[in-house]
Amino acid sequence: MEYYSSHINKLIEEFSRLPGIGAKSAQRLAFHVLNMPKDQVDQLANAIVNAKANVQYCKCCYTLTDQEICPICKNPKRNHQVIMVVENTRDLAAYEKTGKFDGVYHVLHGAISPMLGIGPDDIRLKELMQRITKEEIEEVIIATNSSLEGETTAMYISKLIKPTGIRVSRIASGVPVGGDLEYIDEVTLLRALEGRVEL
Amino acid sequence: MEYYSSHINKLIEEFSRLPGIGAKSAQRLAFHVLNMPKDQVDQLANAIVNAKANVQYCKCCYTLTDQEICPICKNPKRNHQVIMVVENTRDLAAYEKTGKFDGVYHVLHGAISPMLGIGPDDIRLKELMQRITKEEIEEVIIATNSSLEGETTAMYISKLIKPTGIRVSRIASGVPVGGDLEYIDEVTLLRALEGRVEL
Repeated sequence: MEYYSSHINKLIEEFSRLPGIGAKSAQRLAFHVLNMPKDQVDQLANAIVNAKANVQYCKCCYTLTDQEICPICKNPKRNHQVIMVVENTRDLAAYEKTGKFDGVYHVLHGAISPMLGIGPDDIRLKELMQRITKEEIEEVIIATNSSLEGETTAMYISKLIKPTGIRVSRIASGVPVGGDLEYIDEVTLLRALEGRVEL
Repeated sequence: MEYYSSHINKLIEEFSRLPGIGAKSAQRLAFHVLNMPKDQVDQLANAIVNAKANVQYCKCCYTLTDQEICPICKNPKRNHQVIMVVENTRDLAAYEKTGKFDGVYHVLHGAISPMLGIGPDDIRLKELMQRITKEEIEEVIIATNSSLEGETTAMYISKLIKPTGIRVSRIASGVPVGGDLEYIDEVTLLRALEGRVEL
């Protein structure tokens, strides 16, 4: 790495910190950026800074958005009595793409993982419970991933909500076990939604 | 994509323009950036802008560097009568890592490719010929990749230089045919250098 100038090394280092980008890919990206026209380089840098500066958590469902309350939570046509609980914003987008779910969401930003030391207080679970007590909720659909962490989180949430009398359901096992929600095709996602079972 | 805010979409779009980054990876990178602390995000953006602003072509060998003349061209201990011609700065770095080549370089920034419409005028070949006429050169070692484009470029350069009486050599076929120079181990690179044959 000492064969490049310090600015190139710094850029390679920054790229290699991103997930899924190894040393060779980081070099390739760095030299690609150096060969890009200046306005495109500025666009890339600005997109990074602007996204970080303007994107915040929705005060209601905690998805990432550029408004105080996200468009889904604001929409009066959505059914605000049905909350789908997902692990992250990409999973929310995966269900939105099906176009068939008209309820609202709650984004946990993670899943309970004793292995990684992530407990119930490290995800947006307290916020979900507050919503449930404040608002009039009919059903909570738990759409965490069908991984060990996702299942653990689903069981934990269902045990918390059951005593309140609100219906709690889990998306069906149409989602392949061990799979990551965001990589699954829309038909499978819909099957899982239709076949949800009460917990 | 319309399920994310415009700033997130813009960031995903910018990432997906980079080489080797598809739609899913771009999403993953974008959300990773959004979850990074602000100072790390600024570091990444600054590294991109600074590299582009401060890195230029060396006026002598055309490698990417942050000085007018790169440290290798400036170094009086290097043998300035032997020029190794490479396709890009990463290939230069690959040979520098062997630590056994004490000559200087010339970076073409590409290879002749009739398929892609890249001709001799689109790479830094004119600049190489100017160096050869101005400076006292003993040998030109052609270390372009052993791909079709690299071989074509090597043949083209050797035909240009031969009439001047300067010795022209090609790194040996220790480099596997079809291989990309920057991915090859140092021992193979050294073998190829030692076994070079006169063209």
